Amino acid sequence: MKQRTKNRSNLKTVEWKNNVVVMIDQTKLPNKLVFVKYKDYRDVAHAIKTLVIRGAPAIGVAGAFGLALAALQSKAKSKEKLIEDLEKARKILFETRPTAVNLSWGLDKIMKVANKLNNVSEMKKLIIQTAKKMAQEDIETNMKMGKYGSVLFSNNDTIMTHCNAGALATVGYGTALGVIRATKENGKKIRVIATETRPVMQGSRLTAFELKHDGIDVSLIPDTAVGYVMAKGLVNKVIVGADRILRTGHVYNKIGTYQVAMMAKQHKIPFYVAAPLSTFDLKSNPEEVIIEQRKSTEVTQIGDRKTAPDDISVINPAFDMTPPELISGIITEAGIAKQPFEESIKKLFQSRL
Amino acid sequence: MKQRTKNRSNLKTVEWKNNVVVMIDQTKLPNKLVFVKYKDYRDVAHAIKTLVIRGAPAIGVAGAFGLALAALQSKAKSKEKLIEDLEKARKILFETRPTAVNLSWGLDKIMKVANKLNNVSEMKKLIIQTAKKMAQEDIETNMKMGKYGSVLFSNNDTIMTHCNAGALATVGYGTALGVIRATKENGKKIRVIATETRPVMQGSRLTAFELKHDGIDVSLIPDTAVGYVMAKGLVNKVIVGADRILRTGHVYNKIGTYQVAMMAKQHKIPFYVAAPLSTFDLKSNPEEVIIEQRKSTEVTQIGDRKTAPDDISVINPAFDMTPPELISGIITEAGIAKQPFEESIKKLFQSRL
Repeated sequence: MKQRTKNRSNLKTVEWKNNVVVMIDQTKLPNKLVFVKYKDYRDVAHAIKTLVIRGAPAIGVAGAFGLALAALQSKAKSKEKLIEDLEKARKILFETRPTAVNLSWGLDKIMKVANKLNNVSEMKKLIIQTAKKMAQEDIETNMKMGKYGSVLFSNNDTIMTHCNAGALATVGYGTALGVIRATKENGKKIRVIATETRPVMQGSRLTAFELKHDGIDVSLIPDTAVGYVMAKGLVNKVIVGADRILRTGHVYNKIGTYQVAMMAKQHKIPFYVAAPLSTFDLKSNPEEVIIEQRKSTEVTQIGDRKTAPDDISVINPAFDMTPPELISGIITEAGIAKQPFEESIKKLFQSRL
Repeated sequence: MKQRTKNRSNLKTVEWKNNVVVMIDQTKLPNKLVFVKYKDYRDVAHAIKTLVIRGAPAIGVAGAFGLALAALQSKAKSKEKLIEDLEKARKILFETRPTAVNLSWGLDKIMKVANKLNNVSEMKKLIIQTAKKMAQEDIETNMKMGKYGSVLFSNNDTIMTHCNAGALATVGYGTALGVIRATKENGKKIRVIATETRPVMQGSRLTAFELKHDGIDVSLIPDTAVGYVMAKGLVNKVIVGADRILRTGHVYNKIGTYQVAMMAKQHKIPFYVAAPLSTFDLKSNPEEVIIEQRKSTEVTQIGDRKTAPDDISVINPAFDMTPPELISGIITEAGIAKQPFEESIKKLFQSRL
């Protein structure tokens, strides 16, 4: 693993370069823009686990790149042995983040492609090619989402967003922030209010950083001020990303999304979700989704600085569930799903067949 | 100003000792329990401004002690000159925190008492005596609130609280946490969920510290997890303090209270406020209350560690307003006000005449 610092003009979250996975170390933002390089899929798994890379679409592609590394690392001489090596890597990569569905989507896609061929070196070549294509398609998908979503936003809107569903949560451009970018590119004047998003502060560290970097007007608020700014009439619309969306329109996203959605509903502020079709889990029911609990030190300290007494008990879920009745629309690359979601989501998927 | 560290058995937030004001430096908690001593009222004003001491009832008493120091510091030979010196001090002390009404209550009480006498040395004596009595009465008031409030809580309740309305927000015992203490003292088994309370983290730094110190079962959550724990059925009741309560039952309290109350309402969880009558402002209307905006570095850094990009725009209100329809009851030392609050609050004040 080698590190280098680059100027800020390049915000490509994750990239495949000469058989090496290159990603921005998001744990170092906003203080330093550092790119890390991985040649071992286990390092990629560790990077996903420790939030060096995060954001559902980004970890979907990172997972695929992880499998591409595993393919290169494999000394297998037969298809069966290569698949066995890949399966082992898939398991390790998958277990890093259980909630975001894009990770298993990315891994499954690579496994399916691998199984199609029989020649080991051809398999490796196709795996790498597919992973690179997924990265490219991620950006295209986000641009399409931006095109569909931007019509929902008006000139002079102030748009609240939670967590980071931006370029940094994807390969580039972003889902929720991609829609915001597209709205601005369409000539509409907009302002953004970003919630800090405790405990990991993706809002202050990443969203504020990336929007400011792109010259989009952004103000930061603590998560506790969501109700205040809505009650004061300072917000016209809300848009967030998603880590998993069920066929019923139940949205799993960063902890705190549910209460932002509820406050928006109470203040009659439209609440939108932007996510690619790869974020949808059409099989699970709400009670089957595992919500990942993260380590307590995310809440009890910031960096090395302790903010709570020793050995305090902590509840630190990474995600919460926003029920469909709080959601005004779900923006995808195939169009916008509206209530009733079950029907509307089904149609979007059918249009892709 | 002298500092000393003491063992943790004494949690008296603010005290008058041999013509010196002694207080816990709450900016150092939970890492160090440090007591600071002040002989100059301007240092007390600075302590209130910089949150060395905070919590509406505590700063009410700190303000009174500040005026007592100003009286001692005054070289006035006449009543008029002493009142002039006190007025100057009152203005400086008052301007430190515009929203909490207890501060002006404490200052006004001292000014009233000072004006009653004519002899300078008798005035000084009575001012000190009155301020000390106010400190003593604060604890008695909290014990009464505890007595009234504890009947609202049941065995095995899990109670959520926001910010710190504890011993550390008062002279001792606490308002919201006083009710929790009294519930436990009545033999009921209870658990507490404390929100972290960004940006200043009074929940993790102070509430978690003080409840753990007293052997009360407490778990910490990020502010973003309020909806999650309520949706999971992990909370039975909510209790918070207040910085100002209007005659209509509108409650001004730490930023984030409004959304906790709204989420509680949506989940049919009773939401209580505990505050002494000195927290009530029977004159103002909601639109007249100034909500203090605090400095942006509270949001953009923690200690010296930056958590947001340079020069980011920040909205950082210290308080928000919870409308009466979200409140199940307001616990005071004169009894519990219930809806409709205007009538019920009036009765509580009449009972004190």
